[in-house]
Order: sequence, then structure tokens, then C-alpha cells
Amino acid sequence: MTEIPHWLDKQAQLHPNAHAIESPDEVLTFRQLQELSQQIAGGLYKLGVQEGDHIAILSGNHINFAAFIHAASYIGAIVVCLNTRLTEKELQFQLRDAKVSQCFADNDNYMKGARALKEMSDAISITNVDEIPRVEKETYEQFKEFIDMDEIFTMMYTSGTTGNPKAVMHTYGNHWFSAVASSLNLGLDTNDKWLACLPLFHVGGFSLLIKNVVYGMPIVLLERFDLHLVHKQIKNNQVTLISIVTVMLQRMLKEKPLNYPSSFRGALLGGGPVPKTLLHEADSENLPVFQSYGLTETSSQIATLSPSDSFRKLGSAGKALGPATLKVFKDGTPAPPNVVGEIHVKGPMVAKGYFGHPSVNDDYFATGDLGYLDEEGFLFVVDRVKDMLISGGENVYPAEIESVLTQIKGVQEAGVTGTAHKEWGEVPIAFIVKSNLDEVTKEQVTAFCQNRLASFKVPHTIHFVSELPRNASNKLVRRKLKDLIDGGGYE
Amino acid sequence: MTEIPHWLDKQAQLHPNAHAIESPDEVLTFRQLQELSQQIAGGLYKLGVQEGDHIAILSGNHINFAAFIHAASYIGAIVVCLNTRLTEKELQFQLRDAKVSQCFADNDNYMKGARALKEMSDAISITNVDEIPRVEKETYEQFKEFIDMDEIFTMMYTSGTTGNPKAVMHTYGNHWFSAVASSLNLGLDTNDKWLACLPLFHVGGFSLLIKNVVYGMPIVLLERFDLHLVHKQIKNNQVTLISIVTVMLQRMLKEKPLNYPSSFRGALLGGGPVPKTLLHEADSENLPVFQSYGLTETSSQIATLSPSDSFRKLGSAGKALGPATLKVFKDGTPAPPNVVGEIHVKGPMVAKGYFGHPSVNDDYFATGDLGYLDEEGFLFVVDRVKDMLISGGENVYPAEIESVLTQIKGVQEAGVTGTAHKEWGEVPIAFIVKSNLDEVTKEQVTAFCQNRLASFKVPHTIHFVSELPRNASNKLVRRKLKDLIDGGGYE
Repeated sequence: MTEIPHWLDKQAQLHPNAHAIESPDEVLTFRQLQELSQQIAGGLYKLGVQEGDHIAILSGNHINFAAFIHAASYIGAIVVCLNTRLTEKELQFQLRDAKVSQCFADNDNYMKGARALKEMSDAISITNVDEIPRVEKETYEQFKEFIDMDEIFTMMYTSGTTGNPKAVMHTYGNHWFSAVASSLNLGLDTNDKWLACLPLFHVGGFSLLIKNVVYGMPIVLLERFDLHLVHKQIKNNQVTLISIVTVMLQRMLKEKPLNYPSSFRGALLGGGPVPKTLLHEADSENLPVFQSYGLTETSSQIATLSPSDSFRKLGSAGKALGPATLKVFKDGTPAPPNVVGEIHVKGPMVAKGYFGHPSVNDDYFATGDLGYLDEEGFLFVVDRVKDMLISGGENVYPAEIESVLTQIKGVQEAGVTGTAHKEWGEVPIAFIVKSNLDEVTKEQVTAFCQNRLASFKVPHTIHFVSELPRNASNKLVRRKLKDLIDGGGYE
Repeated sequence: MTEIPHWLDKQAQLHPNAHAIESPDEVLTFRQLQELSQQIAGGLYKLGVQEGDHIAILSGNHINFAAFIHAASYIGAIVVCLNTRLTEKELQFQLRDAKVSQCFADNDNYMKGARALKEMSDAISITNVDEIPRVEKETYEQFKEFIDMDEIFTMMYTSGTTGNPKAVMHTYGNHWFSAVASSLNLGLDTNDKWLACLPLFHVGGFSLLIKNVVYGMPIVLLERFDLHLVHKQIKNNQVTLISIVTVMLQRMLKEKPLNYPSSFRGALLGGGPVPKTLLHEADSENLPVFQSYGLTETSSQIATLSPSDSFRKLGSAGKALGPATLKVFKDGTPAPPNVVGEIHVKGPMVAKGYFGHPSVNDDYFATGDLGYLDEEGFLFVVDRVKDMLISGGENVYPAEIESVLTQIKGVQEAGVTGTAHKEWGEVPIAFIVKSNLDEVTKEQVTAFCQNRLASFKVPHTIHFVSELPRNASNKLVRRKLKDLIDGGGYE
């Protein structure tokens, strides 16, 4: 058992009057954030929340989200982070699966949450997170003074591109080590200020709430990625770092010239490799891009590519962070350089398991992602294990084919999956959403692929569809692609 | 059990060609340091060293010291760091007390070590650390790939100002958390380069060998504090940080103007508070000073005062680092602000205990130092618990009186202790080493003290002596002061 002083108390003691969280309409110092969080903790007590309880938050990016998770930590309650894009049915599944006793929602999500709960026979109450009573000091002596690194702090559902989603259990230690691992990689400047515009209910956004209290670093919290606000924060509010995904980088670079101040250190990027042209654009605008690889199970990024390597190692997600290990296993043994296998990770930021499922063993965690390490140890992620198909004995990675398809003028989005085939066992088939701007034919698609892909990778059939099946995290759900054939929506 | 990848392997993988250690005549990259350490580990195997063995190093600041400790870590052997200033008798005590099986010494210390061992009946061998065979890769598969944070890595003897010295046992985790806690406090710049001129056998110097591999940061290793070399490294070799003690700061500031480059971030200072005049000098020379408080038992500093607070909080050692807690206890309960009590510390960098002694419990560690926290939580260290005397019911702290005495022109050093007194129980008496430059009389000393100290603190007798009793760490041993009265050496 490793204990550290409660991280918010610590920062409130070290830098009471320093900015903790800035939002467009409010600024909280660390002492104010502590006070607010403790008042809400007092309120949670009053509502009957006890140590070990599972309490859910269904909320957008608001300061009260941060205060809520710290309040839970003072009590020792476990926070179940719910995706606000979930349907009522999905909410019901997660609330029940996670054994949630009370649910807390912001204004925008309260009605949906209430509707979902109404249909359930389970006795789960819902409270507006802004209406939790603020209770003053009298209950404070019960608050946790120390954080036990081995205790569970949060539960977040994995995207569930296959089967039912599972709740990843993160300990305080998982989050703490993730924050520290990131600082050992990116460095830590006393003037750092990090812009949070990714959803806080996903680990990528959530991790900034932890960096906030582990580093004692101010964060700027935006409700969403609003290009105008993002530019303003970077240019006029001394933001030094931002966490984004590729599509946001694309949008940022549409407003060239950026003229970001030299104090801006860069963008930590999740969600797959960045196209070369975009990297060149970012580079010419002096916007350093830190491409990364991570999962909910790794409590945020576990590998990062430094901007200085981004052209030399195009398409790579970099190397494993200091306290982490990353290996590629094929047939149970480490794969030689450049040989694709399943990516395995190990380290104190890797979650120990899923709630209600057999625990993951203490050694390497199998990510379900396929990839390889080159001779220098740089990671290249290839695809999901479960999405891979085998055609005539050859491994076929849908993601690789999709990345070729999206290079075609007239193709806006593409999804590839496998279908049974007498001769080859399986063959790839493609689903394409056409762009509004350019026309494209199936023949052109096939011709383009034949020029760039081995024949066994060229899609056997092409379906033009109006949209691709995506989950609440906006990830492509490849196993649902074939439903489009039966269910219409394609020409 | 928390495991992380072996820290040297990790840096050799992340930055193989980056500088790891620079010394005036040699530069090693991380890959070279890894190679050297692994070759020495192979040599240690050949010499019979096994996992769990206690092996001692008796050496000045050389690159092979660093390679030796990493070699031990590949095997899982425990490194006993010996002070090169120890007498043969003291060496014998520590070698036996620490159950050392093999001793390794550098050229300068080999003969002393050999002489000490010759008189011992124990079968301890001694080897010149530079002559450990370099054995190549064949044994490498036995090397530890992971570091277990809970395993013991080093043993270092506490200064032993009272009783026999005891070996503090540091885990890998103690050292790792100490390094990380420091980075969370000082920040971590990707251009950081730390100058190591304190002895590596003490935890303050040793901790830089750990920061080196935890941060992936180059260090510059000097055999000792050589003013000329220190200036040169800061001015011409992009050194950004340096660890020193007060007397070194004094010497640095004698060569004004310093003209240090703006990239120089400051000096981390151990060994007690800095006189105001010296702080002003440092300030006017743009030399940021980070005053700190730490013990061997805390694996280096555990509290640090930021330069911005140094005048506002004159004499303070700052606040406890992020992952650490510091409390002052009086009569078993936390003391109110400004009330002196014994300083207690807690955190993952606090050693679990002493070798061969009952283990320290998992909660707060009693430092044996007296101090208080002010209203804002800033620590002021007053004295050692055991050095305090009680005069007429009043607590008297020798360190406070000494700091007044050393302000007197003509006083070079001063030591204060207590002696029995019929009326007051105990009274303070002073031992003074006069300066070569100015004359001073006992009457002048008394008059100076009467102006500045409560009457019960004014020394009852004053002894002029030629030198003060100090231990191998150059710390004043107050309990030996009275020996000077019987043993001569005073006028």
C-alpha cells in the first residue's frame, strides 16, 4: 500500500491562490476548488453516499465535474463516468452493470438520465450535480487525508466495438502514474497550462483533471472543441499544451496562419496516426504534434512519438513512456522487429481489470490491438485483433485498407470488414460514405486500390452508404457494417 | 508490488545517443552507460555476487560509481554506500554491521579499505572497482528486466551524531518517488542538465544518479566542489541545476559578478537555512536558491522553499513536496502553528527502516529534528531533538545560539551544548573557533548575545578552541563538545 497526501489538499496547501481551473466564465483557485469539492463531498454524505459506493456522473465538461470527482475521492466513493452520448438503453445497461447506487447529471443530461432510470426497477436515484447540497466543514474530519494508490477511483466503459462494454477499473495509482509518466515524457514547465476540450468522461479528458492536481498546473476547461475559443485560449491565455484528436488538428490548421505564441508547447494527439500532409502543415505552422497511443485500460496515453521523430517515423505512435513497457507478442513469444503481433502493455498505469469480470493477471495486458515495433523500438499500430480477417492465409487489416480508401477524392469516410468467401475463406468488403464535393464510382475506387494494395486486400465489393455505424465514442463499429447490407442505407 | 521497466534500459531505449553522464574527461551516452553497467554486472556475477548480496562501494565521484550501482541493480544486489572519510575502525563497523560480502573501492580508497579488512576475521574480499572484469553479453538473460519498487536497493549510514550509525535501507521505490517528487516541485525541462559535485555516497549526491535515469537527463559529475570547474560547467556547458550546501554557495558568490546564463535554473541547497545576506547576494546575482530539508531517511529533500518565498519566509525550509506529508507533533498530537515539536514525515520516499533494527512503522517517521510550521504551512527547522537542552524550564536550541554566535566578527565557527547547573538544571555553553582575520574577546561575545538572545539562551561559559568535533559527514557532533574541556584544545 502506497499512500500519498490527498492531491487536491496538497495543491491547496502548496499554491492556495494559484489558478486551478479556468473556464470561459469562471476561475477557481486550488483553495476554491478544494472548498467546493469538500462542500460537495459533505453534500454527498448528506445524500447517503458512503465509502465504496458506486456513483455515476453523466455530465458534460463543467467545473462541477471536477469538483464531483474530488468530492467522491474525499469519501472514497467510486466514480462511474458515463458517456453523455449513450442512448437510454445503453445508460441502463451501464448503470446496472456497474452497480451504481446514485446517479448525478448536469442540466443537459438530467432528463435523459431520469428517463433511463424510470424504466428500471433498480432503486437508483438521480440528482442534478449542480443541486447537490453544499455542506460546510462539520463533516470534514471524516474526509480522506491520504490517497491509497491501490484503491479504485474510477470506472469507465470501454468503447465496446465488440460485445457488451466493460467497465475498466482505474486505481488512484493508475491515474497518478499516468500523469507522472506523461510529465517525464513531455517535461513539466512551471508555466504550463493545459487546455481540456476532450470529454471528461473519457480517459483522455479525465486525465487532465488528474494532471491538474498532481502537477499543481492550471487547466482551461472548455465544454467542447470550439475552434474560436481554442485559438483564443492559445493566443491570449498562455495555454501551453492541448489534448486533441486528429480531426481537431485538421480544423485548427484550416485557420492558417496560426501565429501561436512561442510559449505554446504543442498538441498531444490521440486517435491514430496523422496523415503526412497534416504533419507538414503543423510543422510549417510551428505546431509541435505529439502523436500517442493509449486505451481506457492504460489510463490515457502509454506511448508517445516526439515531434522530432514524426517525419522519420511516419505513422508511428512512438515509444512506451518511462514507467511503461510495451511488447508485441506473436504466438506467445515476443515478435522480432517489424513482425505484426498483438500489442501487450505493462506498467503501473495499466488498469488491473474490469468490474464484474475475472481479473486481468499482473503481467502483460493484451490490448487487442495489432502492431509491430521497428528496429529502434518505435510502435506502429496496425489494427484491432478482432477486426483482422484472413484471406487465403494472408492477414488483412481493415484499417490499412480504409486508410487507402480515404485518400480517394470523393471518399469522405470508409469502413472495411470481412465476409465469407468460398475460395479465400474471407475477403474484405468496403463501405464508403461519399463526399459532397466530388463524385466517385466503384470502378474508380477499385482501380485506386489495385494500384496501392496487394490483390488480396482489394475490396471485393463496394457499398456506398449514407453513414457508417459508430458507437457513443464515435468509433467505427466494423462488426455492424454488414447490417447496412440487410438494413438498407446503401445503394 | 509495483514494477517498472529497468530505468537504465528504458533510457537507453528512449534516448540511446543522448548524453547520460559527462565528467571532465569522459562522456557516456545512455547506451554506453547501459553497456558499461551490464559488463560490470557480468563481472560481478563472475566474482560470485548474487541476488540479495550486500556489496559495498568505497569510492569518490567517478563514472564507475554510477555503473557499479546500476550493475548491482541488474543482479538485484544491495549496494552499501560507504563514506570515504570514514576511519578504518568506522569502516570495519559498517562492513560488519551491514553484512557486506564483498567490498569495491576506487584507487584512492583501495588501500584504506584493504587495511580495514585485513584486521577483520570476516571473509570479506576487496576489489578495485576499476578492475571488475568486463564480461560480455552471455550472462545477460539473467539480468533483471524490471525494477520492483518494494525491493531494497541501497543502504547508507546515518551520520550518527548520537550512538552508533545505522544503515538506512532505501527501496527502488524510495529513490524513484524522491526523483519524481523533486521534478513535480522544480519542474522538468527537456534541456535540464544537473551538476553533481556532492559525494555520491550521501543521498543528496546519490539522488542525482537516480534523476539521471528516471528523467533521462544528463548529469555532469565532478569529483568534488571545484569552484573553477563549477563556474565553467554553468557558464559553458549548459548546466541548468546544481545541488550544493551553504558553504559552497558562499564560495560561488565570492566570484561576483557570476554572469550565469539565463538558462541556469538555480541551486538546490541542503544543510540548513541560508543567512539573509547570502540570500541577498544570490538574488542580486540572479542565482535562484531552492533551500531544502531532507534526511538520509527521506532519500534526499522532502521539503523545499521556492526562491520566490525565500525573503518572505526567511529561515524556512519550505513545504513538503507533492507526494510527501510533513507534520510537527508535540506530546503525540499535531502541534498548532508556530509551536515547536518533533518533525514527522510520511511518503513513498521515506525509508521503511534500518538494517538490523526493528522496522519503522508504516505511518509517520519521527525525524529527531525539532521544528514548527507557520500558519501557511512553511517548515522552520529548529534543532535536533537530542541536542535540545532545558534551562529553567525553557527549551534551548543550540542551533539558534550558534547562528547568533557566527554573526560575530571574529567568530569563524561555533558549537553550543548544555552542561548541568544547580539552579537552572542545564545551561548552554559555547565553543568558538576564532577567525584568522579579526580578534574577538569572550566579553564581546557575551555582550553580542545579550543584545540578541533571551538571558536563558546566553552561553554561561565560552571556550575558544582550535577546531570543533565533526563526523565523517562534516556535521558538528555536539555531544563531543565537552570532551574539548577535558582533552585540551581550548584556551
